[in-house]
Parts: sequence; C-alpha cells; structure tokens
Amino acid sequence: MPFPTPLCGVVPPLCTPLTPDGDVDRRSLRALVERVVDAGVSGVFALGSSGEAAYLSDAQRRTALAAVVEAADGRVPVLAGVIDMTTARVTDHARTAAEAGADALVATAPFYTATHPVEIAVHFRRIREAAGLPLFAYDIPSAVHTKLSAATVLALAEDGTLAGLKDSSGADGPLRRLLVELRGRGLVESFSVLTGSELAVDGALLAGAHGVVPGLGNVDPHGFVRLYEHARAGRWREAAAEQDRLAALFAITDTGDEAAMGRSSSALGAFKAALHLLGVIDCPATAAPQVPLDAAAVKTVRNLLVDARLL
Amino acid sequence: MPFPTPLCGVVPPLCTPLTPDGDVDRRSLRALVERVVDAGVSGVFALGSSGEAAYLSDAQRRTALAAVVEAADGRVPVLAGVIDMTTARVTDHARTAAEAGADALVATAPFYTATHPVEIAVHFRRIREAAGLPLFAYDIPSAVHTKLSAATVLALAEDGTLAGLKDSSGADGPLRRLLVELRGRGLVESFSVLTGSELAVDGALLAGAHGVVPGLGNVDPHGFVRLYEHARAGRWREAAAEQDRLAALFAITDTGDEAAMGRSSSALGAFKAALHLLGVIDCPATAAPQVPLDAAAVKTVRNLLVDARLL
Amino acid sequence: MPFPTPLCGVVPPLCTPLTPDGDVDRRSLRALVERVVDAGVSGVFALGSSGEAAYLSDAQRRTALAAVVEAADGRVPVLAGVIDMTTARVTDHARTAAEAGADALVATAPFYTATHPVEIAVHFRRIREAAGLPLFAYDIPSAVHTKLSAATVLALAEDGTLAGLKDSSGADGPLRRLLVELRGRGLVESFSVLTGSELAVDGALLAGAHGVVPGLGNVDPHGFVRLYEHARAGRWREAAAEQDRLAALFAITDTGDEAAMGRSSSALGAFKAALHLLGVIDCPATAAPQVPLDAAAVKTVRNLLVDARLL
Amino acid sequence: MPFPTPLCGVVPPLCTPLTPDGDVDRRSLRALVERVVDAGVSGVFALGSSGEAAYLSDAQRRTALAAVVEAADGRVPVLAGVIDMTTARVTDHARTAAEAGADALVATAPFYTATHPVEIAVHFRRIREAAGLPLFAYDIPSAVHTKLSAATVLALAEDGTLAGLKDSSGADGPLRRLLVELRGRGLVESFSVLTGSELAVDGALLAGAHGVVPGLGNVDPHGFVRLYEHARAGRWREAAAEQDRLAALFAITDTGDEAAMGRSSSALGAFKAALHLLGVIDCPATAAPQVPLDAAAVKTVRNLLVDARLL
Repeated sequence: MPFPTPLCGVVPPLCTPLTPDGDVDRRSLRALVERVVDAGVSGVFALGSSGEAAYLSDAQRRTALAAVVEAADGRVPVLAGVIDMTTARVTDHARTAAEAGADALVATAPFYTATHPVEIAVHFRRIREAAGLPLFAYDIPSAVHTKLSAATVLALAEDGTLAGLKDSSGADGPLRRLLVELRGRGLVESFSVLTGSELAVDGALLAGAHGVVPGLGNVDPHGFVRLYEHARAGRWREAAAEQDRLAALFAITDTGDEAAMGRSSSALGAFKAALHLLGVIDCPATAAPQVPLDAAAVKTVRNLLVDARLL
Repeated sequence: MPFPTPLCGVVPPLCTPLTPDGDVDRRSLRALVERVVDAGVSGVFALGSSGEAAYLSDAQRRTALAAVVEAADGRVPVLAGVIDMTTARVTDHARTAAEAGADALVATAPFYTATHPVEIAVHFRRIREAAGLPLFAYDIPSAVHTKLSAATVLALAEDGTLAGLKDSSGADGPLRRLLVELRGRGLVESFSVLTGSELAVDGALLAGAHGVVPGLGNVDPHGFVRLYEHARAGRWREAAAEQDRLAALFAITDTGDEAAMGRSSSALGAFKAALHLLGVIDCPATAAPQVPLDAAAVKTVRNLLVDARLL
Repeated sequence: MPFPTPLCGVVPPLCTPLTPDGDVDRRSLRALVERVVDAGVSGVFALGSSGEAAYLSDAQRRTALAAVVEAADGRVPVLAGVIDMTTARVTDHARTAAEAGADALVATAPFYTATHPVEIAVHFRRIREAAGLPLFAYDIPSAVHTKLSAATVLALAEDGTLAGLKDSSGADGPLRRLLVELRGRGLVESFSVLTGSELAVDGALLAGAHGVVPGLGNVDPHGFVRLYEHARAGRWREAAAEQDRLAALFAITDTGDEAAMGRSSSALGAFKAALHLLGVIDCPATAAPQVPLDAAAVKTVRNLLVDARLL
Repeated sequence: MPFPTPLCGVVPPLCTPLTPDGDVDRRSLRALVERVVDAGVSGVFALGSSGEAAYLSDAQRRTALAAVVEAADGRVPVLAGVIDMTTARVTDHARTAAEAGADALVATAPFYTATHPVEIAVHFRRIREAAGLPLFAYDIPSAVHTKLSAATVLALAEDGTLAGLKDSSGADGPLRRLLVELRGRGLVESFSVLTGSELAVDGALLAGAHGVVPGLGNVDPHGFVRLYEHARAGRWREAAAEQDRLAALFAITDTGDEAAMGRSSSALGAFKAALHLLGVIDCPATAAPQVPLDAAAVKTVRNLLVDARLL
C-alpha cells in the first residue's frame, strides 16, 4: 500500500497498554488497534506522546511498534514516532521503525539541548535521508520548547523532506497562516497537515487541515470519525456539536490530583482508565515515574464516559 | 444605550494614531472610528494592546479615550482597556475611563509581580466594585505571563463579576472547553466570549464564541464584518474563505527586520502603516521606544494591501 | 550631596508600610528609614519590587517617596523606582520622582509588550534625557521577562546613559562576565553594580560588585552591613558566615500557603510581618490583591526571627 | 577505589571528540582525560551536556564511556551521565554505564513530558535501585525545563537516594539556601554539591560547595584546579582573580554567529575548537545537527586562548 498523499482523516496516537508488571501488553494493544480501525480511522500513530514514547525503553518501543504493525495488517498505514533528543539518536529509532514495518515516521525538533532553525532543518533532512520513509514533523513546543517556524516547515515541504506536519502547538493563528501559504504554493495535495488540537478539530478542518491526531481518539474513535465525516460533507453545525461532546469528555484528563501528580499522569492515566473501563485494555497502568489515578478519579472518568454515552 | 448582553460581532481594538511629535492625533482617531463604525462593527475597544495602551501616558490615554467616546457618539459601545500592573492602579484607570464615558472595561490579570488564582479573583472583584461598569477579563498570557484558568473565569462569570472575556491566549483547546462549560451552565446569554485570535475567527465562531476583537480589523474592518456575517448565517465555507484572505493580509505584521526591532514595532507599525497608506490616519508613527518600519517594509505592506484588494 | 560614584555598600529596597485601610503609613515608613540609616546603609531604594511599587497607585507612590526623602534627610541618597511598562509612562514617573527629591532613578526594560535590545537602549536613553538624574537599570527578568544583555548594559554604561545596574536576575555567570568586562574597560569607578541576589552577596562582592540591594535588608539591615564590611575588609569566611545566617532567615518568605497565595504575598507579607513583629511598622498589611499571611505563618516568621537572633 | 564521600574539587564534564566522519575519537578522548588528570582534577564526568550526550547514539555513548574508564584507569572516579527522558530509559543507560565501569551516575529530572515533584522523587529512587551506584542529581532547568526543589533534593539526600547534586541551574540563591540546609542537617559530609556555574566557582566554594563541574575545564583544567586550591586554602582574592581570567576566557563560547547556529553549536564548538588549537584533540567537529564554527570564529577562539595565556 503506497502511503496516502495527502494523509487525511483521523489518525489516533495510540496508547501503549502495559501489564501490571510494566511490560507492553500486546494483546490489549492489538485490541485497541482493532477498535480504532473498526471505527474508520485513516491511520494509526504508534509511539507518540499519548503512546508514552517518552516513557518506554527501546525494547518496549520495538515491542509496541511490532504489535501495532501486526494488528494494522496493512489495513491502515502505521506512523511511528521516533522521539529522541537529536539527529543520531532519532536516526537510530528511524531505522528500527523502518525495519519493524512502519509506513511513515514522526519526529520532533531537537530537544534537551539548545537548537536553532538552521539546525532543525539539518536535523529533519538527515532523518529523512537515513530512513527512506515519509517523514512528518511533530510540532510540540510543550515538550521540546521550540515552535517550528512556518519558514522552516515550508522549506522542508517544498524540498520534499517532509511529507506532513503534526501540529500539537495549540496555536491556531500560525496554523492558519501555514495552511494559507501551503495552498498558495500548491502544496496541499502533497503535504498533509494534521492537527493535534483535539478540541478544535472542526475549526482546523474548516481552515483546511487534512486530519487530526487526537489522543482522546483512543477513547472515542467513533466520535472523531463522525466529526471528520461531518466536516468533509460540509455539515459544520453537526461537526461542531460532535466536537462539543468530545470537549466535554476531555474533562477526564483533569481528574488527577494536581498536588500529587503531573499533567501526564493525569491525562494519560485517564485515557488508559477509560480504555480499561470500556473493556478494551486489561490494565490501566501507566509507565514510571507516572503516578496512578486514585479510585475517586477513576469514578469521575466513569461518570464522564456515561455522560458522553460511551458507557 | 444599555450595554449589549451578550456582546456579539466585531469589536476592533483601535489603534491610537499619533502625530509626528508623539501626541495623540484626535482627528485621525475619529476618522478611524468613523471607518469601523461604517463597516458595521458592534463596538470599539480603546486602549487595548493594539491601541498601544502599554506605551501611552495617562494623559494620552485620557485624550484617546475621550476622542473615541466622542466619535462613537453612542452608535456603538466603547470598551476601554485599563491596563496596569495591579488592583489599585487598574482601579484608578477604571474610574478615569468611567468618567470619560466608557461603556465597559477590559482588564488583565496582575502582571510584573507574581500572582495566583486566588489573587486574580480578588483583583477582578475589586475592579468591578470600584468602577460600576461591565468588566471584561483580558486573557493575554503573552503580555502578562499568566493564563486565566477556566475555573477562575467561570466563577467570576457566575457571580456576575465579569461580563465577558477577551481571549487573546491563542490556545484553542481551553477556549473550546470554556465555551462548552458556559453553555452547560446557561451562561452564554449573559457572558460574552470574544476571541482575539484574528486568524481563527471562523473556528471560534463555529465553536460558539460571540465575536472577535481583531487588531487587523483596524485595517480591514469590512472583511471581519463579512466574516462574522457569513458565520452567523451558517455560510461556513464563505467565512473560511474570508478568513483565509485576512490571514494572508496578516503578513503585513512580519515586514519589520527582526534584527532591528521587536514584534510590537513590526506589528503595530504595520497596522499604522496600512492605515496611513489607506488614507485613514495622517501619520504612521508608533510610540517610543518602538522602532519605525523602513521604506522596504512599508512597500511590502502596500503590496499586501493590494493583494488583499484594499488598495 | 553629589551622588556617590560608584555607589557602594548596602542599599535596601524599602518596604512601603500601609495602614489597615491601605494608605501609605508615613510614620512607619520614616521609622523604617531611620532604622536602616542607623544600621549604616549607603542609600535607600524606594518604590522597588520590595516596596510594592507594582501595587501602589501613583498617589501612593508620591506619598511614599516624599516620606522617604524627608526621612533620609540628605544622610544617604534616595534611589527611586520608576516602574512602568514603557518609555512615556516611565518618563512621567521619572519627572515626578525628580520633583520629589530623588537622587537617582531605577528603571526596568519595557514589559507587558514585546521588546528588543534596540528598543531597550532607546528606552533607557530617553528616560535619562527626560529626568536629568543618575539612572540605574533594573535587571529583573522574573518581572519583565527579558534579561538585559551585557552588550546593552556595556553600551549604556560607556555612553553615560546608565550610572549603574541593579541585577536581580539571579544569574551568577552573566554578572561575573559583566564585571570582568567593566573592569577591562575601566568603567568600575564610574558604573555601580549592585546585586539583588541577597543570598549570594559574599560571592558577588568577591566578584567585584559594588554593593547589594537586599529585600531582606528591611528586616536585618545590620546583618547586611556587617556582611558588606567583612567583605570589604577581606574577611571572607566571616562574610560567608553572616550570609549563611541571612540565608537561613530568608525562610520567612516561604511561610505562605502555596495553595492560597502567590509568591509576592508570601515574601512581601513576610518582610512586613517581621517588621511588625520587630516593632518597626504598625501594620503588616500588603496591598491588594495580595493575600495576608495567616497566624501560623506569622508564628513561623517569629520563630525564624528568634533563630536569627533578631527577637 | 571507594567513591569519595563527599566528592570535592574539579570534575570536568568531558567533551567527546569526534572524527571527521562523526565517530567517537577514542585516541583524542584518552588524551583529553590524560590532560585533565595531569592537571589534578578529582574526577571526570563523561556523557554530560558538554560531552554532547544529547547528540550521541547509544553506541557512541558506550564507546565514549569505555574510553574514559580505560583512560582514567582508576586514578580518578568516572561519573557517567545517563541522560534520557524518563525512568525506564535512564535505567537502561544506568545499567550500561555500570557494566562499562562507571563509578557514579548523573541523572536529570524527567523531560520532554510534563512532570511533578512526586514523580521526580520516584524517578530518582528507581534509578538508584536499578543501578547500584552512587547517584547524582543533575539540576539543569535550561535543558529539562524543571528546577529541582530544595525539598526534593533534601529528601533524597536524607534517605540516601542521592550522593550529590550537580547544580547547573545558575541560580545562586536557591543553591545557598540548600547548602545552609544541608549543613544544618549534618549532610555535608555525605552529600556532595558540585556547581556547574563555571563563572562563579569562587562564590560557590565560599558558600560551601564541594566542587565544580566546569565545561570550560576541558580547555583550562589547570586554571580550575588552581582556583579550587586557592579557595581551599582561603586565598579568596587569588581565587577570584583566577575566576576572572577564566570568565574572560569564556568569551570563546560567544564566537558563533547567532543568525546561523544555536547556543550549543557555538559553545561546544568553541570548547572543541580550543582543544584542537591546543593540540589535545585531532578534530573539532561537533555532532549533528550542530553547525561548525567558521574560520573567523576559530580565529577569535585562538586570540582568546592567547589572552588567557594558554597559547
């Protein structure tokens, strides 16, 4: 299957279910893939932030990616995150992912170390050359503390280094300007823009984004597929209503006690708690050093699933 | 005229034209008000960030607000920014603005000093009590380095402290969640949400925002009014096309040389250069210590006005 | 009295005592000045961050500065903070301070709005021209979100715009490099470097700083004067021991409940609680919207004063 | 050799020399170790930020650490950085480093992902348990965007999780308070505090720090050893003079063109250019995506080496 150009629709960043011992739970991961494919997603994104890529060892990453590729079984393309600090490390992950059967790669700007637009361009070009797979830039300033500039993205789109962008910046203005610029340069047929802003998907699609990579799509893939289909058909009010329902559901990510855990524990813990309550995965554990949700938080997650008509 | 509840539509944050000597140019300011009122705006916002409130002395602020109130002449409500560091200082501005005839006030969270949600709530409550006018919270983390939390805004909406929110955070997710929450609590008829994200107005209106406060609306008020009317009528594709044209026009804010000036000089300088080229204001000068655009930048502004069919 | 060049020694940034009604308490402020002058300080700094300048109305600022000038009575120079967002506003404060009898001014880089090194230089040059008093740059990135670069400070030191620097950046490396550079250019006799890092004064003096502006010097001016005298005499071990005692005392600033108040409420509240417990000021109130310390916090402040042998 | 408790003196964070092809240059790395051991350092720190740990693949990290352990040959302890995003990944590096013969480990707080003090404590405890080697916390907010709190460090010092701290926060106040607190709890004999603020070493030693981890110590290890010896002997003026010379030399890190490269390229490029000019390493190349210094920059580095009497 050639990689879709452009890639459109819903591409959930898959959670990585773990066993109580902290190993990758392949059975649960396959069940998760099955569920989202059944819901009509256009692809799956393994080893993203929602997939706890930052928390998984290299061995766990390999196990998880292999399970996803196997479960997807060619029905939808598999995008693989190659999250690491700089070029050589990312390139190693890229080769591993290519060998495991990934269809495309998703890499961030360098992090931990100080960087610069010139260096960011070098970084993506080297990764693209090393791996021989379509490459998406992952714009996630909350994690890497750099925002990809429009100039950098456009240059790398024009020269074919990048096949697309996953925009998790949450910044609506720059995204709009990028979309207008891509259209002006005739690049919207070859370069995919996927928003990671799962609470403003209707607006992003109205602005011309090709699709969405929603963490919440682990929990409610059908909702995001409906939202996408409404938007594609020009049913904007219906799209907005679906988005509103999903925005209310997103409150599951706030149930963790801020005095006792960080935002990742709370949000990824909620996705997994929901998947566990929905019977998709066997165990809601998140990777160390994340802190588990307590019973009260899980109860709130359950209530919100009921409110969203998922339970 | 009672203050509109909720306030809907386009409310441009008016530039403050200056003379070559740096005084407030009342004639040009009145002309600017006339132009936006003619274009069909629902209100005007004096002394906001686009109005260089941070740069104007108290005397200049008074002069500018008086000119706006006089020019608006009761045809549209005048919102007045009361931008200052903390409560006592803002309260002084609030009283001055009330005396000058402002219809509502717009205040930020405390800045310069460290703050806290508890203190932010005290801050808005005291301002509201002191001034006796409808009060809008101005969420502008790029300036004040604090993001207003949904919890704070909701509490102050429910108890009547706030009449609305001007959201210049650029963060689409939190805005969506706030709108859903306001609707759930039955507050959307009494509490106005105006987006300051002038490049994602279509999406914000689709999400339920009441209106927009676009800096670029100084330059193209008709465009924003058309965008709003399209959205209100459910013509989302037309709204998006108008937004795209405005997003392309926004490139005027990038013409300044980054090695020689800051973002404010470049953006506010461009708004004023455009208004000067359009014949609305007499002089494009910005307030010290901002640096003027050079001739090449002004030429680019002119070209972009032509591209946008404004010249 | 000509302004000391360079200004050396301890220059406390005076708290601004308030009455229970929130007015400036001139009697208490005069008592505070008397106490620090008796302790041997080299100057006093009114209307700085510790003086709640960000919280005081213009009228309160005038009252406070007048009281300080009167109390100092020419015995030590009075530096006056002119804290505001940009040039025109700061210039107005500068003129007011000059009329009130200030001996020198202390101004920050522009804040609230985006700025740039070129604009920062314009800013300080205009303030210097307008006020006709020695001007200190106040480097306080925690408040203004810009760090003054060495290049900017050196240029403004060389051309006589700046008489000195108050470095509250807390960044030891850049300060050291600046001091070495000033010495290399022969500027250390004409340009004063005062550290605001009240917990590393010994190291700053060893590095060549001329003096210190310690918020904690409101509470223990004698301690800081001893520290300075030890350092001047080359008794570095004794200086360090004094600094250690003062660092332990600084724990008074941590007594506020983080869930209920911000850092300013906690720190400035502690300075005032201590001054109240020491009998220097009549009322420990801080300005709105700061939150008062509770009884348990005040008890901890008292215990720490006892530990530091001040009570 | 038991690990020194506490570890005192100069512990340079070794650069990792590369060949023109980008491989670890073991010969040059051994020469670098030899030079710093000869200069009298107390230990060496492999795979830190100066060692480009963020840029090296796992294979390169193994090669570099093995070369350092071999070259150190038990004469000084080898600390190994285990820089990665979260617990499982760091633990893998920790095991590898232990097998390679490291004497102690240096780990940061989690990064890329959101974290929390509770999670940071879990993180360090798990690493300590997994590796069975003395563990240093690496406080480097510029890289990981979290500052370790005193409360966290003290708790982990008291329960034996941490053997020490490498403080690269550049924040002098919190460091002083931590040192005072450690002394008060009787922990200064068992817990080592090493400053990474290479331009304020005299002040840090005066404040009670045990030693320094200076990136610039790659270039001038003898200078840092002299500085340390002066301080240990109470010759503070001589220590300060040595520090001043080293602060002037630090200007080598500023020679890179800011329009063309990031801070890491400029600083690490300068260390390597200097080592190359000094004849210690064969090739000044830095790892991708860093950008090389141009000839003019290298010439400036050379001049500064001459000024510092190293060439």
